[in-house]
Amino acid sequence: MNSRITFFEEKIARVIGQVFADDEPRTLYDPARYTLSLGGKRLRPLLTLMATDLFGKDVDEALDAATAIEIFHNFSLLHDDLMDKADMRRGYPTVHKKWDANSAILSGDAMVIEAYRYIAKVPVDLLPEILDTFSAAAIQICQGQQHDMDFEKRTDVSEKEYLEMIRLKTAVLIGCALKIGAIIAGAFSRDAQYLYEYGINLGLAFQLKDDLLDVYGDPRTFGKKIGGDILCNKKTFLLIKALKNSEKSQRASLEQWLSVSDFDPEEKIRFVKNIYDELNLKLITGNLIEKYYLASLDCLSSVSVSEDRKKELIELAENLMYREK
Amino acid sequence: MNSRITFFEEKIARVIGQVFADDEPRTLYDPARYTLSLGGKRLRPLLTLMATDLFGKDVDEALDAATAIEIFHNFSLLHDDLMDKADMRRGYPTVHKKWDANSAILSGDAMVIEAYRYIAKVPVDLLPEILDTFSAAAIQICQGQQHDMDFEKRTDVSEKEYLEMIRLKTAVLIGCALKIGAIIAGAFSRDAQYLYEYGINLGLAFQLKDDLLDVYGDPRTFGKKIGGDILCNKKTFLLIKALKNSEKSQRASLEQWLSVSDFDPEEKIRFVKNIYDELNLKLITGNLIEKYYLASLDCLSSVSVSEDRKKELIELAENLMYREK
Repeated sequence: MNSRITFFEEKIARVIGQVFADDEPRTLYDPARYTLSLGGKRLRPLLTLMATDLFGKDVDEALDAATAIEIFHNFSLLHDDLMDKADMRRGYPTVHKKWDANSAILSGDAMVIEAYRYIAKVPVDLLPEILDTFSAAAIQICQGQQHDMDFEKRTDVSEKEYLEMIRLKTAVLIGCALKIGAIIAGAFSRDAQYLYEYGINLGLAFQLKDDLLDVYGDPRTFGKKIGGDILCNKKTFLLIKALKNSEKSQRASLEQWLSVSDFDPEEKIRFVKNIYDELNLKLITGNLIEKYYLASLDCLSSVSVSEDRKKELIELAENLMYREK
Repeated sequence: MNSRITFFEEKIARVIGQVFADDEPRTLYDPARYTLSLGGKRLRPLLTLMATDLFGKDVDEALDAATAIEIFHNFSLLHDDLMDKADMRRGYPTVHKKWDANSAILSGDAMVIEAYRYIAKVPVDLLPEILDTFSAAAIQICQGQQHDMDFEKRTDVSEKEYLEMIRLKTAVLIGCALKIGAIIAGAFSRDAQYLYEYGINLGLAFQLKDDLLDVYGDPRTFGKKIGGDILCNKKTFLLIKALKNSEKSQRASLEQWLSVSDFDPEEKIRFVKNIYDELNLKLITGNLIEKYYLASLDCLSSVSVSEDRKKELIELAENLMYREK
């Protein structure tokens, strides 16, 4: 990463570290501070700053909005982990494990409100548009999470439905982060929209890459255990595609593996991966990721700033695309 | 109620009926529509309209903000009922009973965001102030709910702590509803603040009256069973005061009743009520309600509009004060 990006990341770390700094009661704010402190890539606020920078505006102007987006992202992880009964996040126990369900609910609620309080700090002439953009993304994330939960109960989810779900649940906030950065920079609305689309395509590629790495990642670089999605029957792109493309006998034994509750983990992973291999899903998924990656670059090329200013956003797309974790 | 208030109430019913009208997915929005449809007094949006009307402005200008406040209020009931494990609300099963906990969490989240989308519709020149006022109340409600939950685990809650808790949890949104109505009417900020204080005092009186009616209400008019708070050891003003004012032997047997899990409901209610009687808590609580009621009228009298315009807000305070349910 170049030094300017590092400089942006340091700014973000500083402001995120200040959120809820001395707020009380601690029973409400400790779980929120904990969630924010766990870090992660801070991809979304970075994108906001990069979008503002793309149009030559001082990134400090975008820090409040970037913070709002990161708070909202972490809120959604907090509530999602509770709903999905996930015990761990980024190597640490989730809030409902470390505290309890009520702490996760109420601290999450406080985080949504705090996100809006940071949005409210943007320049007043931009407030209506930024508020609308933010809320539109926020509600779509809820819709995406609802689809995701609904899909868990179904075995007939289509590829189209899945892609729409990850668009809502993941891609929209990435698009929103970029678009808000562009709005703050005073970009033409056409350019802001192109950046949004760049983000949507990037977000889709990003999530599909996640799905792919869970099965085909290199255990030495991946960081998490390979096959986690397979073990918990997560409806990833690969599973949906496998259920669709498999012939009768493959599908029957796949569904068998989805329904057993007592199994040897390694055996289940090996078996399901074998079907994925037979169905050529590594290549098929890789091709789709490539398609979205190229589409994202295409959107970026339509933004009316000189090409050399776009270098970092192009690099970032490449890094997400060719990452191994 | 006079016909103008009825006219306001009809407007409110109409807009609330339109919230989330055809939104999808239904798994996300049905629980939210259900929560909003259960009704209740619609006190907060009515106060917003009455505040706007007080300064001679068309109440239609305040409908979006009033809707936002009612959505937020219902969101907080939805999440509180889940956290408090309450099975019923207004005579109907709560969302986590009728659906499940995840539905209650995510539909509630969608309601917060929708509340902000309605706030975003206010005239743009008023947006920053209204947004700040709304968010300040919203975060205080979370703090109040956290205190309420924290208090359940303690037996040494002071009267002061309790009053601060109900100020945050209940009174602040009533004040906020009025203040936003005043802001929309273009009232002087001094007048908006007096109305806010009128609302705070009214809200405190309102909650204390709730606490009182649970013990001393008339079973024929109260609507709910008398003694519900006593049965679930709810830390009401009366219980806190009783724990404080009781002499050693009274306190010992009161704590005994708080700790037993197997008891005859009627006997427990009779016993606790008897201690409340001995400690003169009906009169003490009534006096405190009267104090807040008079303080609310005092704040209202400071608002710089002619006295005859205030008649309805005075009547409303009286009605809340002398209500039997």
